[in-house]
Amino acid sequence: MRLHLHQTRHVVGDFRATLSYLEGVLRDGGSGLHLFPELYLTGYPLGDLCLQEGFLRGARAQMDALAGAAASLPPRDDVLLLVGGLGFPGGGAGAPVQNVVYGVAPGGRPETLHVKMLLPDYDVFDEHRYFRPGDAPGVVAFQGTTVGLSVCEDMWAPPDAPLDPMALLAARARGGGGRPGLVANLSASPWHAGRGRERLERARAVSRALGAPLAWANRVGGEDGLLFDGSSFVVDGDRVLGSLPAWREGVLSVDLPGPGAGAARTRPARPAAPPPAPRAMARILSPRLDRSARPPRLPEPPADECDAILDALAFGVREYAGKSGFRRLLVAVSGGLDSSLALAVGREALGPGWGIEALFMPAGPTRPESAGLAAELCRNLGAPLLTLPVGDAHLGLRGAFERRMGGPLEGAADENAQSRLRALALYARSNQTGALVLNTSNKSELAVGYSTIHGDSVGALSPLGDLYKTEVRAVARRLNERRGPSVPEGAIARAPSAELREGQRDEDDLPPYRVLDPMLEGILSQGLGAEGLAALGFDPGDAERVLAMHWASEHKRRQFCPVVKVRPRSLGTGRRVPICKAPPGPPEAGGRGAGQEGGARLSR
Amino acid sequence: MRLHLHQTRHVVGDFRATLSYLEGVLRDGGSGLHLFPELYLTGYPLGDLCLQEGFLRGARAQMDALAGAAASLPPRDDVLLLVGGLGFPGGGAGAPVQNVVYGVAPGGRPETLHVKMLLPDYDVFDEHRYFRPGDAPGVVAFQGTTVGLSVCEDMWAPPDAPLDPMALLAARARGGGGRPGLVANLSASPWHAGRGRERLERARAVSRALGAPLAWANRVGGEDGLLFDGSSFVVDGDRVLGSLPAWREGVLSVDLPGPGAGAARTRPARPAAPPPAPRAMARILSPRLDRSARPPRLPEPPADECDAILDALAFGVREYAGKSGFRRLLVAVSGGLDSSLALAVGREALGPGWGIEALFMPAGPTRPESAGLAAELCRNLGAPLLTLPVGDAHLGLRGAFERRMGGPLEGAADENAQSRLRALALYARSNQTGALVLNTSNKSELAVGYSTIHGDSVGALSPLGDLYKTEVRAVARRLNERRGPSVPEGAIARAPSAELREGQRDEDDLPPYRVLDPMLEGILSQGLGAEGLAALGFDPGDAERVLAMHWASEHKRRQFCPVVKVRPRSLGTGRRVPICKAPPGPPEAGGRGAGQEGGARLSR
Repeated sequence: MRLHLHQTRHVVGDFRATLSYLEGVLRDGGSGLHLFPELYLTGYPLGDLCLQEGFLRGARAQMDALAGAAASLPPRDDVLLLVGGLGFPGGGAGAPVQNVVYGVAPGGRPETLHVKMLLPDYDVFDEHRYFRPGDAPGVVAFQGTTVGLSVCEDMWAPPDAPLDPMALLAARARGGGGRPGLVANLSASPWHAGRGRERLERARAVSRALGAPLAWANRVGGEDGLLFDGSSFVVDGDRVLGSLPAWREGVLSVDLPGPGAGAARTRPARPAAPPPAPRAMARILSPRLDRSARPPRLPEPPADECDAILDALAFGVREYAGKSGFRRLLVAVSGGLDSSLALAVGREALGPGWGIEALFMPAGPTRPESAGLAAELCRNLGAPLLTLPVGDAHLGLRGAFERRMGGPLEGAADENAQSRLRALALYARSNQTGALVLNTSNKSELAVGYSTIHGDSVGALSPLGDLYKTEVRAVARRLNERRGPSVPEGAIARAPSAELREGQRDEDDLPPYRVLDPMLEGILSQGLGAEGLAALGFDPGDAERVLAMHWASEHKRRQFCPVVKVRPRSLGTGRRVPICKAPPGPPEAGGRGAGQEGGARLSR
Repeated sequence: MRLHLHQTRHVVGDFRATLSYLEGVLRDGGSGLHLFPELYLTGYPLGDLCLQEGFLRGARAQMDALAGAAASLPPRDDVLLLVGGLGFPGGGAGAPVQNVVYGVAPGGRPETLHVKMLLPDYDVFDEHRYFRPGDAPGVVAFQGTTVGLSVCEDMWAPPDAPLDPMALLAARARGGGGRPGLVANLSASPWHAGRGRERLERARAVSRALGAPLAWANRVGGEDGLLFDGSSFVVDGDRVLGSLPAWREGVLSVDLPGPGAGAARTRPARPAAPPPAPRAMARILSPRLDRSARPPRLPEPPADECDAILDALAFGVREYAGKSGFRRLLVAVSGGLDSSLALAVGREALGPGWGIEALFMPAGPTRPESAGLAAELCRNLGAPLLTLPVGDAHLGLRGAFERRMGGPLEGAADENAQSRLRALALYARSNQTGALVLNTSNKSELAVGYSTIHGDSVGALSPLGDLYKTEVRAVARRLNERRGPSVPEGAIARAPSAELREGQRDEDDLPPYRVLDPMLEGILSQGLGAEGLAALGFDPGDAERVLAMHWASEHKRRQFCPVVKVRPRSLGTGRRVPICKAPPGPPEAGGRGAGQEGGARLSR
């Protein structure tokens, strides 16, 4: 049997584009089984578009058009498309929809072959909000082979899942329902660093357990910072029969031996693996928080991970800007590390004919070397650099407050005002030229609220918001190795500072990043509190201080732009934490009152 | 039997406060059955705190302390507390928790009596993300009466629910499990205008169907703009046996006749209502979108609804500010309607010893009467008014762009800069005095993105973001009737304008609000698209334009502050819509590309 995996890129809700591609495959796609990603027809994720009449009407019209296109062709039994789409189980307007696999063949009518059984509700996923689950795995016979069907999560069955679709497929075979000769999985599987390895491991385990090859077709696209990398593949046991690259469209064609042809394979016949007991494969990967007591991951990623992250960030920025209709990017540079890498990532992201610009806005506390580092950066990257001093405007504001507001602007109020003046000028420039503003915050700052709301935290998209400061540094170094001089060594080496007052250094306000970053990883990825951090050897005083800053800054993260996600646990739509709350802890420690600082006070 | 409903107000996660209150009730609460709200012990909603070790450790420690307190008292069989809390069904760290009813009595050990069966996943709810559901309704015998237990949604069973706990209670009675003499419902039920009526209707229907009184204990508190009003009650069929007021703490005590005492009641004995068939009561209220074709609700709310909304808004602001540690509020006033009502709501919200201040920031296009209207407003409300002209700073910025940026600031770029200068000065003032900034946007503006990001859309909390412009006007008028002159008639009557250019009027850019607002209600609450709006009689050109503005402005709403929720469908955490997408519609209409304007361009 010939297998074709279609890894294509479309805008969410662009019904015409996906329809037109499918029509082409039905007409000219050639003999074989054609696999498409989860919800290929509509795009993914859809969010509340699933509740919108206009959208659902469009999805139904698209299905009608697809049915018409299929019916208009001469029947063929050597072509079958397995396409992810929305299912309408009936019940009329207001009834929940389903996440299904349609079978479509030339000369036939589209048929619902499988309904997604496991609906994830962790991290960025909200699928119980939209979909009604299926209760048994679908199968379809094609050219004498029984193909077991699944959609994304169906293949994973985390420990607390109500059932395990792969085990049910195996049980079906034991019950005489036919051993699958192939398992097809249609996915929209978000990327994070290391995810490729996890998927392959899981797919091999499933293939071994079911004694059948597994074909895994994944979406490619960036959706508001959530990245789908594609990287589709076919495995047979431990062997990879074929795969597609990440971040690019492509079609993978693989020939599988026909039914009963197992003996004819040149490689040694595998002994039929015993079918797994229900839920036996369940513990390979849990989507829940990892609360094991092992120390948090070391924050310095190796070179290949830095490369993967750089590619992912550039793809995420290009997707967001492109889908939003922007061809120009704008970054405020300070001569510091974060803004330098943000500009470099923007430079990597540019499509043909796109442009990028840097804006440097010095004021009183700006160190003399900052201008030089900004200039060096822009020379390295070939990006035009504009300079707009904001010191006079800052003095003007100070004067106005002195005269009109009954007192001077001092301390945090004054520092924040300076940061906000830059944001104002940056957005004025972006409005003037029609450029998309890239945010320059990193994950360490975001996690403790060490930024000014409506100041340095502004931007349409955050390319670095899922990287701790130590990771930003490693990625910048790696970029220089890969591309030649990009981020100036001076920007990498200098002590981090917001330069909002003379001599300010981040480490006067925060623990050193080499301590802060693994501590934050313990809080964010392992869900640790004070006791858990102390058990890992962190200083209890530091831990209490960082936890307090973290829990008190939720209001800033709530108003932050989308973050390009490169880690399993990120600050963004996959995080849902109340703003007003008592600091988490045992009753003897938890004080009365909420202890957060609301919207404005002490914004840095 | 004596029933006590405890409607108390605590900060989410304040384990010590709820524990100490329960200890008091165990010791001195008096004979009878004491009902507490859903998740009373921990607070609600918890969000991802349910995934945080420090928080879960605190919740377990609290349960241990509660068990200790109960065990230390002499046993009594005439006191039972039914308390909502987190259940830990075992499985150790990482296992999902449950939303349970604990039974606690002096001299005994806390017991899990019921596990919430229906986990809502619509609007603001994400309960499948956190909780593992129960599969059968709990009952407990107290003083010879069988009490059927339920938590919030268990009593509602929307049409697509997998089961109906109330019908299961009835089936249990039919199967000889004992007819309940009382149904207890522990709720954390968010408020919206008209919600009280819906609850009472539903509770009466359940009580009639089961032939037993129903006691409904609801949480009171404002949580990041989501409001819980309390309004707890006890009904017996159609009769209300007692109720508590909204927005206030209180304890309701009611005497119910004992078992077999039905005949002794002075009112005529009701015939035993037939138990409902499973799911028979399911269609009373669906939490899903209402996609029926009836015209959208008229936007002008009647006086009693305006009163209820005013009380709710003031409560929401007071809760958010109080729980965030603020005792001062700050509002930017323009002499227009929205900012006037925002200041008036802030004034209503003040606690004892709190303060509020208004900041007026005129520039070139500010109309001469605006200053007078701002002054009249502040006189009416007794709020200090500061004036900080921003025209010079605006000219300074224009000059700097002319000189440094290769061209003047014009059009939207110039208008947005003016709006952002005001935001900058407003936040500088809030930092200077430690005041919480109230946002002044309304729902009409938010829904079409008619505001400047990091400009007039700033603030820590939005009191008016769930009211259309026509509703803002009605509520302002009603406030004047209720409190005497507050919002100046001139501000109510004048044509809405952002005053960012000479002669600007909202209705030059948007359809008139009397058309726009019901259209938006059709989009937001009924999920209508172009065809649905046309079927209601809206001009198709207007509808297309408004839909396009709505779908293209998601990036602004994503970065907006929490909204005080007063309607079933709001712009806030209960809405999850992708930023990058094709405009929803049928394939023949949907263009390629996303058609949204990203983060910066044309922000007004």
